[in-house]
Amino acid sequence: MKETKTLWWDESLGGIRYIDQTLLPTEYTLIGCTAVDRLITAIRRLEIRGAPALGVAGGYGVALAARTCTGPSFSAYTRAVKKEAGRVRESRPTAVNLSWGVDRVLAQFLAAKDVASARAAALAEAEAIAAEDTRCCHAIGEHGAALLPDRCTVLTHCNAGALACSSWGTALGVIRSAVAAGKEMKVIACETRPLLQGARLTAWELARDGIDVTVITDSMAAHIMRSGAIDAVIVGADRITGDAVFNKIGTYMHAVCARHHGIPFYVAAPLSTFDATRSEREVTIEERGRDEIAVLGNRTLIPDGVPVKNYAFDATPTDLVSAIVTEQGIVRPPLDIGALLSRPGAKRTG
Amino acid sequence: MKETKTLWWDESLGGIRYIDQTLLPTEYTLIGCTAVDRLITAIRRLEIRGAPALGVAGGYGVALAARTCTGPSFSAYTRAVKKEAGRVRESRPTAVNLSWGVDRVLAQFLAAKDVASARAAALAEAEAIAAEDTRCCHAIGEHGAALLPDRCTVLTHCNAGALACSSWGTALGVIRSAVAAGKEMKVIACETRPLLQGARLTAWELARDGIDVTVITDSMAAHIMRSGAIDAVIVGADRITGDAVFNKIGTYMHAVCARHHGIPFYVAAPLSTFDATRSEREVTIEERGRDEIAVLGNRTLIPDGVPVKNYAFDATPTDLVSAIVTEQGIVRPPLDIGALLSRPGAKRTG
Repeated sequence: MKETKTLWWDESLGGIRYIDQTLLPTEYTLIGCTAVDRLITAIRRLEIRGAPALGVAGGYGVALAARTCTGPSFSAYTRAVKKEAGRVRESRPTAVNLSWGVDRVLAQFLAAKDVASARAAALAEAEAIAAEDTRCCHAIGEHGAALLPDRCTVLTHCNAGALACSSWGTALGVIRSAVAAGKEMKVIACETRPLLQGARLTAWELARDGIDVTVITDSMAAHIMRSGAIDAVIVGADRITGDAVFNKIGTYMHAVCARHHGIPFYVAAPLSTFDATRSEREVTIEERGRDEIAVLGNRTLIPDGVPVKNYAFDATPTDLVSAIVTEQGIVRPPLDIGALLSRPGAKRTG
Repeated sequence: MKETKTLWWDESLGGIRYIDQTLLPTEYTLIGCTAVDRLITAIRRLEIRGAPALGVAGGYGVALAARTCTGPSFSAYTRAVKKEAGRVRESRPTAVNLSWGVDRVLAQFLAAKDVASARAAALAEAEAIAAEDTRCCHAIGEHGAALLPDRCTVLTHCNAGALACSSWGTALGVIRSAVAAGKEMKVIACETRPLLQGARLTAWELARDGIDVTVITDSMAAHIMRSGAIDAVIVGADRITGDAVFNKIGTYMHAVCARHHGIPFYVAAPLSTFDATRSEREVTIEERGRDEIAVLGNRTLIPDGVPVKNYAFDATPTDLVSAIVTEQGIVRPPLDIGALLSRPGAKRTG
């Protein structure tokens, strides 16, 4: 399998290089980003998306601010970088990894004593996040692969793959690791309306790796579960509080239907996704614009003047979750997230 | 409220006039159809769709065959019409109303003794089906409106409205009748992938009548149910066997999620939709082509070579159904469909 890289620091560019995910599957285009404003646009437009990738992007965003900001004094310079970092942090509200990545790099940046060492510290920490993310995905993959039997069919939603991370993936990392271990796997990818990350991205990256993938509409999942053809559901996460898993809209429906059919429902996510001190009601679920649902390409799908609701995420109560796969191992219900985070080696700092 | 008519016999045309539902909501176009082949194309392409409308179209299809076929003898003529009727009957497999409408008109046609009276008998019976369908929808509406409290929010899937019938609608007929009775109603219309009948058709016809409608993706329904904002789910049906309700793909998922949240799940359908002598496993669920999911307008949504599954319908076991609203009244579980069909006035003949 190829290690698809999603975003990285390109020193010759002096900025971030990333795959524009809005253009897949028809175009594979790398964008070079040398300004914080452009990065914020990329995050808002979902050119870069996926919780772990947003953590990496947040980190690189601070490194980019450190590289591009100037000021008449060191303190003016650091104030300018902090302000830019704040704008990156606020560019999307639900995935906790974004603010985690920003804050982790900002802490190293602020510990430095001059511009050159602050820039170097920010970039080094951002690179460390990216490298850790790849290592985490492989560790998640290996822990999670043990949950999947040979010759099994797994349903997934949205894209928790290489494209959602620096590489390899979380939910799709588990599937990749199972395949790498010699298991025969079939994947049912829900298309994931409105932005079709399942149809466009999950199908693209699994097909590229030669993994058997079939796309369905989100509404077909329960029907196929009832037929007995699904052995497990596995998804990623944007934020895991003490009581709920936040992930792409539609995840909750799959969790309810998996429970109804006695199918295990697994979540794969790095510890940077955990936000154990908060509860579900403290988290904002992003609502996005009408056109994401009302228009596709050259087609108008909804009559003018008819409103939509466009929740980007939903919350699945942890009692519907069979297990959460992290880089430190598997947590089973009742989920003791606090104990997991206090294990030696648990690196969550947010 | 306007009485939107969906399809009717146009004597000046010598054929069927109908709204092309594939062009809504951006274009309102009436098609004149004077050949059985064109009608079959219209049914296969979903220019005409919705179970009760397919019953009406099946009836008019036989009248059209009676009008256009010729033969060297009366028996050759009737053989030709029977063959054409058979082709209309087979044009889509799941909705029972199509074969019911064909067979009902064919029986009247075959009872005649000469070409002129056979043509007249076929058209008269087809017109009777259309008129009965409109009466049924109003009766369903009035029975069903009693189930909906004032100031309620109802979730619906696909289009079980005027456009799915000759006029008024089944599930949307219930909502229209509740509004006509002075109740304040809000409708959440699921967009209904892949062909977006909810976004395109339900939103169009409810907005046209001034009924409050909001469109969501199919995957948002469970999330909104969990928020407590949905008082009832109401859908139509394509076929009701003794053990299951067949309806547009996605219906089953809503039924499972409604049960999980303690929300009533109602089905509204005329008795012509019932097929009580069959069981779920005897019914074919239509599978449609890849492009319905893979392409939309000018956009390719799925990488080349990646397969899809495209089930057009699913089956909801009757134990997940709170009540079925028919023109004869409301049936509650345990559903005794046989007793309902044997009531005086029950006209189901299929």
